[in-house]
Amino acid sequence: MKAVILLSGGLDSATVLAIARSEGYECRCLSIDYGQRHRAELSAAERVAKSLGAHEHRVVKLDLATFGGSALTDRNIAVPVEGVKNGIPVTYVPARNALFLCHALAWAEVLESSHIFIGVNALDYSGYPDCRPEFIEAYERMANLATKAGVEGRTRVKIHTPLLHLTKAGIVKLGRELGLDFGLTFSCYDPGADGRACGQCDACQLRRKGFDEAGIEDR
Amino acid sequence: MKAVILLSGGLDSATVLAIARSEGYECRCLSIDYGQRHRAELSAAERVAKSLGAHEHRVVKLDLATFGGSALTDRNIAVPVEGVKNGIPVTYVPARNALFLCHALAWAEVLESSHIFIGVNALDYSGYPDCRPEFIEAYERMANLATKAGVEGRTRVKIHTPLLHLTKAGIVKLGRELGLDFGLTFSCYDPGADGRACGQCDACQLRRKGFDEAGIEDR
Repeated sequence: MKAVILLSGGLDSATVLAIARSEGYECRCLSIDYGQRHRAELSAAERVAKSLGAHEHRVVKLDLATFGGSALTDRNIAVPVEGVKNGIPVTYVPARNALFLCHALAWAEVLESSHIFIGVNALDYSGYPDCRPEFIEAYERMANLATKAGVEGRTRVKIHTPLLHLTKAGIVKLGRELGLDFGLTFSCYDPGADGRACGQCDACQLRRKGFDEAGIEDR
Repeated sequence: MKAVILLSGGLDSATVLAIARSEGYECRCLSIDYGQRHRAELSAAERVAKSLGAHEHRVVKLDLATFGGSALTDRNIAVPVEGVKNGIPVTYVPARNALFLCHALAWAEVLESSHIFIGVNALDYSGYPDCRPEFIEAYERMANLATKAGVEGRTRVKIHTPLLHLTKAGIVKLGRELGLDFGLTFSCYDPGADGRACGQCDACQLRRKGFDEAGIEDR
């Protein structure tokens, strides 16, 4: 069965791809070039898709920088280094996951696939509204009304979120079990000009904490 | 109050802009360049936004041609000229309205606006899954969970669909009442190289029928 996997090139989405593959899906990976600071992600996505034997990997451009409003797409907003705080982080990108899922939905519909995988996580990214289970449920309901599925009574579109309730350490352990090469993935929000992770942003801190708690080396 | 208006440059969305303006909204118009055959729409959108005194008009690029699957974005699928049929037309673009609304949602969130206007119509476009009231309701619910609105308890996002239950003739009459210059709008799915409407596609036929039934001249 065909599935569309949203693949950022980070640890989480790479683990999702490994899961989908282990479940026997024919994986079509979709990466979104949305003008993010951390474009090294996109090369990571390409490496990961290849390494995990994805059937296909496409990159679509998405014009989010036009709207701004996030540290990840607006050069005037700095990526914070003081660590994870309460509330909605400035790295939140307006409507990002809804937009990403809609691109996956469009492709899935053309492929006549009913399976979309996304690596959202409700624990470590609890400040992001679009990483919550209630968002995913509402999205799935909307997706089934937005497309042919809802009219022609085909198989319903299913949004798979295998990481939703896992800790970062749990994700690391799962990735290791599935043989994921962590060295191919890239998580930093604000890499240097040399493409190296900054080690200080939320994404770097969460990644380090995950590996520490899992007792696994990040390489 | 600020509102984001999805403006294609066609008759319907131009009427929606006229409605929003008449209701006192500060209108930010958003047009989507999604590789559509009928790109003359985009120049029409610019003319309409200017003519109706929109506060701002932005065009964002959306990469739908990558996925294909629609006569409007895939050069290998012809635009039909045999008239409106039952079922989902080949001019349906996978997940289009969900994608358009998500772009509007992202911008609205940055603007801190809770009002999005879209010219969907459930009568004449009954074959499009994403023009049905149940889709709009599900979208609105999802939108409020996808964004800061759902977390911080701000005013809820409202998707305004003033044309939802109108006939094309009703839309034409309403546009006329609001002083809309129909000559600025453009509806054809498959214009010639000279930019003129083909007169044969579904969009041209619906437009003609609307003006005929309204007893108003299309100019």
